[in-house]
Amino acid sequence: MHIHPVILCGGSGTRLWPVSRKAKPKPFLPLVSDETLFEQAVRRVAGDDRFAPPMVVAGKAHADLIMAQLGDTPGARLVIEPAAKNTAPAIALAAALLPEDAVMLVCPSDHHIADSAAFRAAALAAAALAREDYLVSFGIAADRPETGYGYLQRGEPLAGGFAIRRFVEKPDLARAQDYLASGDYSWNGGIFAFRAGHLLAELAAYRPDMARLVAEAVAGGSAEGARFHPAAEPFAAIDGDSIDYAVMENTARAAMVPAHMGWSDIGNWAALADALAHDADASGNVARGGPVDFAQCSGVFAMSDGPRISAVGLNDVCIIVSGGEVLVTTRDGAQIVGKLPGAVNQ
Amino acid sequence: MHIHPVILCGGSGTRLWPVSRKAKPKPFLPLVSDETLFEQAVRRVAGDDRFAPPMVVAGKAHADLIMAQLGDTPGARLVIEPAAKNTAPAIALAAALLPEDAVMLVCPSDHHIADSAAFRAAALAAAALAREDYLVSFGIAADRPETGYGYLQRGEPLAGGFAIRRFVEKPDLARAQDYLASGDYSWNGGIFAFRAGHLLAELAAYRPDMARLVAEAVAGGSAEGARFHPAAEPFAAIDGDSIDYAVMENTARAAMVPAHMGWSDIGNWAALADALAHDADASGNVARGGPVDFAQCSGVFAMSDGPRISAVGLNDVCIIVSGGEVLVTTRDGAQIVGKLPGAVNQ
Repeated sequence: MHIHPVILCGGSGTRLWPVSRKAKPKPFLPLVSDETLFEQAVRRVAGDDRFAPPMVVAGKAHADLIMAQLGDTPGARLVIEPAAKNTAPAIALAAALLPEDAVMLVCPSDHHIADSAAFRAAALAAAALAREDYLVSFGIAADRPETGYGYLQRGEPLAGGFAIRRFVEKPDLARAQDYLASGDYSWNGGIFAFRAGHLLAELAAYRPDMARLVAEAVAGGSAEGARFHPAAEPFAAIDGDSIDYAVMENTARAAMVPAHMGWSDIGNWAALADALAHDADASGNVARGGPVDFAQCSGVFAMSDGPRISAVGLNDVCIIVSGGEVLVTTRDGAQIVGKLPGAVNQ
Repeated sequence: MHIHPVILCGGSGTRLWPVSRKAKPKPFLPLVSDETLFEQAVRRVAGDDRFAPPMVVAGKAHADLIMAQLGDTPGARLVIEPAAKNTAPAIALAAALLPEDAVMLVCPSDHHIADSAAFRAAALAAAALAREDYLVSFGIAADRPETGYGYLQRGEPLAGGFAIRRFVEKPDLARAQDYLASGDYSWNGGIFAFRAGHLLAELAAYRPDMARLVAEAVAGGSAEGARFHPAAEPFAAIDGDSIDYAVMENTARAAMVPAHMGWSDIGNWAALADALAHDADASGNVARGGPVDFAQCSGVFAMSDGPRISAVGLNDVCIIVSGGEVLVTTRDGAQIVGKLPGAVNQ
């Protein structure tokens, strides 16, 4: 029985400004390799007959980019969200378009996963639990007290995973350190496996209006080749929410599978620098694009689309030159890049 | 009796790369104000009838720039060095072209002096000593243990100044700290007053070959309007040296006048940032050109010829964007900018 990859393309990636821009945001950029993050997400489940062709959910603005980057992926489908309503409606759209017994594997399009084989193994474990009507989240092994992520607390063991005892949204540093020390917590990676019909039933229980409006949008929608256009009016009426808030934190059937797969959400420039650490020089400096000259630097990440970057005496700084914008930020400062005037007013 | 300003344009300003370039180096750039440093040097002694028109000494590559920036300065002359031979031959060329009793005021073209009135007052004091055949250096009040400058130790008091007991080239930090604490030392600002004939006589005593070759270059030279071209062959044969090594450190008649005039050699990007400190925001950040956005920064200097600079979380860093080059350096690193590949291979 196939696993149906559902690839979500809703992220704006403003913290990766000035490379990530509204017209061509983070998923569609070759950040970690020569492939874009979206292409990597597609490739990760391609050519493996345990996985069905992908269903992509995205906004209209990026439909042509997606079709181009899908290339000749056979059987791929594109669901075009009439409005951005967060992850729960996007996932529900896909669920409503799949057979109710289909197991869907929901994947963000803008994460990096170094070990595809480990990803697929975790997907198989998650799918097995999903077939037993668990709502399954991938639990990423935490390796630092990150305050920017949600955490999952492991409960009773299940076959290939664990029940989830508790969801914790972005904790403060002290709590994050406790979680890391306890060994009981994983990061919520935003990757899920559900049986489509079960996901819709749970959504109907906790968000009946959302479930009804999604059903109406699908019933009133129209197919156009590989593209599906849900009806705009009911979809626009949805009160958007994340799948975590709408379903995962409410259900009695939440489960997680541990995933050790070199995961990064490439959430900001420091995270990208870490994902590229294998390319670092002896002082921990990483250059992308270029040209780049480092002098007396350590832990510097420099990326240019043409102009030379010369960096002197810096530690733990990211320098990004792209499209006529120059960003220089500390690793800590990288969190607020999306709030800079340049990123906000693009 | 007039004081004859002699403005030297020999500096390359490579530590101010990428703004300062071979074709248009530091003196000819509007670094501190809307005027270039050279224009400021000319303006500093203009419109004051105690000063004669300036004589500029420069290489051929910058002759047209100089004539353009001199504008309508009446009576200005330009001496074109056939080769770069450091300051002693350049100053001797000017001395040989002036009446032997003329008092010459030798000024670098690439320094900043905030208080022109204080400069002129020091020049008058220096000129008075020069007329008594002292070789006079401006002593800049040291306000930090700078290791990049030469120091002058004050000796016996003279009218309006002091004899110089000792010259010290760039000291190490411990000695620089001692000098600063003692109160006996000033920085050697590279500004001098000499009686022309006396300077040539002293040069003949300590560097007879240089003095002879300069005399030959002047005797065999040719005037072309306001320009004077010394003969190339004898000038090329000179073993170049600084006026400090060739004369000042040898003479028994070295004197200094204290000068408190807001002096800076704008020796690197950190020095320019300091010279522009009056424009700093509440966190000590300075922007030139732009646009520039600072977030959670302090002591950052950012200068752009067009592309926006966005700086986040940085302390004491200089960011320079100019002519398709992006330089990011700590204040300490600014000293080695001239040795970067971009600066060396321009």
